[in-house]
Amino acid sequence: MGEPVIGEFELIERYFARCAPGDARVVLGIGDDCALYRPRAGYDLAISTDMLLAGRHFFADTDPEGLGHKSLAVNLSDLAAMGAAPVAFTLGLALPKADPDWLLAFSRGLSQIAAEFSCPLVGGDTTRGPLAISITILGEVPAGAGVRRSGARPGDDIWVSGCLGGAALALRLLEGRARAAPGVLEALLPALLRPHPRVALGLALAPWVSAMIDLSDGLVGDLGHILERSSVGAALDVEHVPGAHALIELEPRMRLECLLAGGDDYELCFTALPGRRPAIEEVADRLDVRLSRIGSIEPGGALRFADWQGQPYRLPDGLDLTGFDHFG
Amino acid sequence: MGEPVIGEFELIERYFARCAPGDARVVLGIGDDCALYRPRAGYDLAISTDMLLAGRHFFADTDPEGLGHKSLAVNLSDLAAMGAAPVAFTLGLALPKADPDWLLAFSRGLSQIAAEFSCPLVGGDTTRGPLAISITILGEVPAGAGVRRSGARPGDDIWVSGCLGGAALALRLLEGRARAAPGVLEALLPALLRPHPRVALGLALAPWVSAMIDLSDGLVGDLGHILERSSVGAALDVEHVPGAHALIELEPRMRLECLLAGGDDYELCFTALPGRRPAIEEVADRLDVRLSRIGSIEPGGALRFADWQGQPYRLPDGLDLTGFDHFG
Repeated sequence: MGEPVIGEFELIERYFARCAPGDARVVLGIGDDCALYRPRAGYDLAISTDMLLAGRHFFADTDPEGLGHKSLAVNLSDLAAMGAAPVAFTLGLALPKADPDWLLAFSRGLSQIAAEFSCPLVGGDTTRGPLAISITILGEVPAGAGVRRSGARPGDDIWVSGCLGGAALALRLLEGRARAAPGVLEALLPALLRPHPRVALGLALAPWVSAMIDLSDGLVGDLGHILERSSVGAALDVEHVPGAHALIELEPRMRLECLLAGGDDYELCFTALPGRRPAIEEVADRLDVRLSRIGSIEPGGALRFADWQGQPYRLPDGLDLTGFDHFG
Repeated sequence: MGEPVIGEFELIERYFARCAPGDARVVLGIGDDCALYRPRAGYDLAISTDMLLAGRHFFADTDPEGLGHKSLAVNLSDLAAMGAAPVAFTLGLALPKADPDWLLAFSRGLSQIAAEFSCPLVGGDTTRGPLAISITILGEVPAGAGVRRSGARPGDDIWVSGCLGGAALALRLLEGRARAAPGVLEALLPALLRPHPRVALGLALAPWVSAMIDLSDGLVGDLGHILERSSVGAALDVEHVPGAHALIELEPRMRLECLLAGGDDYELCFTALPGRRPAIEEVADRLDVRLSRIGSIEPGGALRFADWQGQPYRLPDGLDLTGFDHFG
C-alpha cells in the first residue's frame, strides 16, 4: 500500500496524548468510552462546536502545525465571546492517510495552544476520509454570567477589539485577488494562520458588556447576529473601525470589504452602556489591547453606516458585505 | 446553480431547532457563540465524540432518517458504557448540498432519538463538504461512579447484553458477501441501521460492574480494550456467546467472524465479581434484557478461546477477528 501502517489507537496514543496536559478536574482523559470531567460548583458549562474542512476553511496543503493551532483557536474564540474560561476539548479528525510528518506537526500546533490556554484534549475519534477537523470545546463561566448575543439595547456603545481586515487581506493576497508591497503578506500571515483568541479579554470584559460575539465571518455579518438576536438596529461609524495598517494601500472597495466583511479576524465585538466606558478602557489598558468604539445601538432592526459626524456614509457601489455563509 | 438557496443559519433554524426539546438545565441552546449548561452538583460530566463519514461508516445513499438515528445512537451507546445518563449533544455536519428532503429526514431521525433519550441538541456547525457527521455528547454520572475499561480483575465474570452478529451479517448481505433466506435481511436491518443504545441498562448495571465497554468494533476487539486497560487476560467461552438467530445458517468461519468480530452491535460487554451475579440477573429480569456470562478474567494479558468445558476452542483457520481499525 506504500503508506505507513499505524492503528487508530496507536495514532491517538502517539500523537495526541501530549495534547492532554494534566488537570485535576479531568477525572478521566482519552482512552475510554467517555472522558470524565468534574464541573466546578457555581459555574455554567459553555459548549461550542466548529467543523473545519480542507478546501473550504483552509487549503489542503496548509502548514499542519498552523492548522492544529487554528483549529483550537477558533473554538477558544467562541468561549472568549461568552466570557468563558477554557476547560477541555474533544477532537474528531478525518484524515486521507496516517502521514507521520503531518500528524506530528498538526499535533504539535494543537498541543502548544492547548497548553497555552490550559485546555486539555480529553477525547476524540479518528477515521480515514477527506481531511476534516471537528472540535468541541468546553468552558466554564460563573452561573448566569455567560455573555449572550441578545443583550444589546438602544443607546449601548458598540466596541471592537484589535484591528480588522488583516486576515482577509492575507487570504486575498494568497489567492491572487489583491496585490501588496513586498513583506506585506508575510506580516499579515500570522493573523490568518495563527489567530490569537481573545480569551483573557473576554473574561475581563464579561462583567461590563451587554452582548458579545467573536468576529469569524466579518464585522457586518457578526454584528448583524447581535442586532437580530437583540431585536435592535445600529449606526456603525465606518471611519472609526480600526483596520490593519496594510489596508490603507487598497482601493476603497476592497479595503472596505476586508474591513467590514473580511472574516477570520477572531476579534471581539461587544456592546455596553456608555457608563461602562471607564471600566472598559481600564480593561484595554490593563491587557494592552486596543478597544475602539465604532458605533451605537439604535431602536429598530436596521444597520446603517455613518461617518464620524453621524451623517450617512456612502459605501462604494457593488460592495459585498455579506458574511461567509456555507450554503448561501 | 440548480440547488436550493438556503443559508447556514436558516438551515439550523428550520431543520434542527426541533432537535432541541426543553431542558431546564440547558440555560442557553443553539444560536449563540456557545451553549450554556448548568451541571448538577455531585455529578461528573461524561464526554464522547464520534465522527461518521459517508463511504466509511455508512453508504452515501443510506436512508437519512436512519442515519440521523444512528449518528446519535452510537454516541448514546458510549454514555451507556460509562453508566452515564444523557444530557445534551452538539452536531458538526458537512453536507455536499442543502437538500431539503435529506435534511428533513435526517433531522427527523435525529430529533426522534434525541427526544426518546431526553438529550437535546445544544449547538453545532454546518458547512459544505463531503458528507460527515461529528457528534459530541455530554452525559452525567454520580461523581466518581463512571465505569471505566480499566477495572477488570482476575476472577471476574465476563458478560454481554443481547445477541451479537446481526448487524455484521446484515452488512455482509447488503454487500453481497453472504447469502440468506428471504426475509432474513429485512429482519436484521434494524440492528444495523437503527441500533438501540443500552442507556437504561448501563445505568442499572453501573453499581455492580468492574469494567464496561460498548461493542462497536466487535467483541474480541472491544473486550481486548478492557483487557489492555485492565492489564489482564481472559478466557472467552465461545459457545456461550449469544448470536443472532440468523447466524446459525452461516458456514462456521463467517458465523464466528460475525459473532466475535462483527462490529456495530452496540451491546454492552462488562465484567463483574461472581458475587454480583444475583444483582446482575435481577437487572436482566427487570429490564427484560438478555445478559449472558461468556467467560472470565484471568491473570496475564492473553485472550484465549474456550469451549463450555473450559477446553481450548479450536477456531477455523484464516479467521479474521481484528476489530475495525480505520488506519490498520
